[in-house]
Parts: sequence; C-alpha cells; structure tokens
Amino acid sequence: MENTTIKFLKSLQQKKFRNIHNEFIVEGVKMVNELIQSEFKVKAIYATDTQDLITSDTTPILISDKELSRISGLKSPNKVLAVVEIPEPKIKHEELKDKLSIVLENIQDPGNLGTIIRIANWYGIENILCSEDTVECYNPKVTQATMGAIFRVKVHYCDIYSLIEKAQEWQKFNVYATHLSGDNIHDKELNNSGFIIMGNESKGISKRIKDEFISKIKLPSYPPNDDQMESLNVAIATAITVAEFRRRII
Amino acid sequence: MENTTIKFLKSLQQKKFRNIHNEFIVEGVKMVNELIQSEFKVKAIYATDTQDLITSDTTPILISDKELSRISGLKSPNKVLAVVEIPEPKIKHEELKDKLSIVLENIQDPGNLGTIIRIANWYGIENILCSEDTVECYNPKVTQATMGAIFRVKVHYCDIYSLIEKAQEWQKFNVYATHLSGDNIHDKELNNSGFIIMGNESKGISKRIKDEFISKIKLPSYPPNDDQMESLNVAIATAITVAEFRRRII
Repeated sequence: MENTTIKFLKSLQQKKFRNIHNEFIVEGVKMVNELIQSEFKVKAIYATDTQDLITSDTTPILISDKELSRISGLKSPNKVLAVVEIPEPKIKHEELKDKLSIVLENIQDPGNLGTIIRIANWYGIENILCSEDTVECYNPKVTQATMGAIFRVKVHYCDIYSLIEKAQEWQKFNVYATHLSGDNIHDKELNNSGFIIMGNESKGISKRIKDEFISKIKLPSYPPNDDQMESLNVAIATAITVAEFRRRII
Repeated sequence: MENTTIKFLKSLQQKKFRNIHNEFIVEGVKMVNELIQSEFKVKAIYATDTQDLITSDTTPILISDKELSRISGLKSPNKVLAVVEIPEPKIKHEELKDKLSIVLENIQDPGNLGTIIRIANWYGIENILCSEDTVECYNPKVTQATMGAIFRVKVHYCDIYSLIEKAQEWQKFNVYATHLSGDNIHDKELNNSGFIIMGNESKGISKRIKDEFISKIKLPSYPPNDDQMESLNVAIATAITVAEFRRRII
C-alpha cells in the first residue's frame, strides 16, 4: 500500500477529515457484509482474506495483516476495512407524520448513540433526528456499536427545535420527552405517531425542550422512590421507552 | 507518594493483584461519595482536593495532580481515588426465594456488566448471580459503568447451574431465560419471584441452560420478524425484560 493511501485511510478516523472527504470507515467482516447488502455507496474494500465476504460490485483489494493493522482503528483488526460515502438523508416532514421517530438532544457518548441506533432498528424506527451538537454518527465507535444498524436507520442532523415546533401543529401526532417530572409511562396513552425526545447524558433534556408544550413521561423505578442516587443510562432509557410504545400496538 | 505505593495502587488495575490483595480501586468524586455512604470498607482515600468529598472515618491523603495522574486508570482523573476492600457477599438461598434476581452466564464486556448492575439497582433487584466465567465486577470499567450501583447491588460469583437446578424445586418460583425460541414476553405470565437468566454477548444462553426445564421468553421486535440481521445488546435486553416484570406489579 502506498503511504498516501495509508495516511488518507487513517485520517478518516477523525471527524474533520470525514467531513472534508465525505467518507467514513467500516471495519470487520460482519459490518462490511451488512454494508454490501445496504444502499450505502462503497468506495473501496481492503481485505486480508475475502473468503467470508459477500460478493459485490466493489472488488476487494488484497492487503497484508501488517498493512491492515496500520490502517485499522481497532485494537484487533478483523480482516476487512471499507471506505464508504457518507449519505445525505433528506428529511421529508410528510414522511415523519405517521411514524414514531427518536429525537436526540446533545447525546455525547458514541457508544450510547450506536446503541440507540441499534434499538431503533430493532423496533422499526426509521429515522433518528439529532441536534447539531450530538456526536457524529460516522464516528467509528458509533458505527461499531450499531452492529450494522447504521446501514438500516436514517440518522439526520438538523435544527430539532424548529422541527419540534412544527410537529406540534401536526394532526394525530404527539411529542414526548422523558423527564423526572413526567407521568408514569405505563399510565399514559402513547401514540405511535410521534417523537420521543431523549436528552444529554448528564443534563437530560434542555430547559428549552422542557418548556415546550410536550408530553413528559417518566420511567418508574421499582419500588417507586424519589431517591436520586439511582439512574438509568440514556440508551437503556430509550430502549425501555420505545419497547413500551411498541408493546401497546403489538 | 512513595514509589511502592504508586506501584501497589497501579497493580490494582489488574484482576490478578485485586485477587491477591482483596482490594479494588474506585475513582471520581461522585463514586467515592457513594462509596463513603455504602457499607463497603474503605482502606484509603487519595485526593487532590477534598472540598466536594463527604466526611468519613477515613481521612483523605492529599496528593498532587501529577501524583493522581500516575495512580489513576482514567484518561481524565477526577480529584479522588479510593482503595476499597472486596466484600464477600454470601448467598443465602432462603433470601432468593421470594425475590427477582438476575443470573448472568458468561457475560464478557465490562460495560455490559456495569450497565446491568445499574439496571438492577433501578429496578430493586438486590442480587446478581454470575457464572464463574463472567467478567469480574471489580474491574474498573465495570465499577465506572455502574455509576455507583456497585455499592448497592450484591454481585455473587457461583456455580449458577447447580443453583438453577436447586431453584427449580422452590415453591412459587420461576426460572426464565431469554431465547429466540421463547414465548413473547408480553403474552406470558411473569412471576416476580424468580431468576432471569441472560446469556453471553455473542452466543446467548448455553445449551446446558437451554435444555433445562426453564421458561423461555422472547423480546419481540417491531414489526415482528425473523430476520436475524437485527439484534439487541445484552444490557438492553436485560433492561427491557426487567422493566416488563416490574411493570406487571407496579
């Protein structure tokens, strides 16, 4: 491999260069096989061994283990690394009106975002709408944590505040946010056309969201108590919330 | 600080030395404050600044930022590091008979174990029973992920197989395991005196558990499908399962 190629591939570990080149990295046999079966545009595949790879239009470039370890961002590189074009999913508001979507405000941890994308995929949520200050979804730690769900769920970065304002005018549509001041989710009517807003890991939803005219829901602990010692991680809270919405219609 | 002290404290990052000394490390102001309020036995506290620390019987030893960064296992050390005695929680079978407990078989990821301990704390589960090959709970990555719940939930390592066999003789007690072949959890009678068994991250529960006479439950995806592309992380699956058990009695 040429040094310039190695340098370029390594640069894609950083957000700055992903933005410049509009490309990101996907690693590992399972992930690359899911990539190949998705609608994402593959730019290049580098592999030390192609026998477990699904055949695609992109012919893999054979490299040595040593070369792979130079270009990989993983501690234990796993046979293959692909370069992928960053898609530009457009949100059509019309499409959101009769669906359940997750809205994320300022989620910072890549593992949390990746896990939330995986949860969305499991529960048939097609769109995740992220505030501009949410961690970027093509961060390798995010894509790895999605276990391939990144190729099946659309992640949009947008002005969530104006979107939420707009959504409040939609018919038969509800906006929900999890907050300690909310009503017990199990006692609440839940509409599967709506937004579920989840807030930052340490601060929760912002005052701006809290003051909007939205439905606040609370996940009850057991036994119910107001002891603030216990808490749930934001990805865990997202899972329990979405599971409860979906349970009502299953 | 003396070099031997620094060496000793750093050694506690490794399981081998935690076992030899029967001590583990807790870091950060929030975690150490929760430690102080728990029943765990504090052996020493090292702090660069004590103003946010709760007063306790253990007088903190003041150290410099440079010293803290030498003994810390964190990328960004947070003012304080404590040495704690590893407790030896004994399981009394009598105590488990009328409670819900989580049983973990061969969980490998420290973040997953830490998150499961935090979930147990939220849902009032007092005991987690781990197979001997589950990751050790005093691993710093586990304790950090618990956000303090490690001080409030008892984690036992034991022969889960003989325990499960024994539990099957208990009156009004059920043993559940999540498995794809199981019944939809939402259609199932759930008994809050029981074990919920969760299996290894990639392999799920073992054949040995699967073949036991236990109740298999499945978390339904939405829309329901048998596509094996999607999956849930084991900590997420634990959260949704336990939330459903608790919802039934709230």
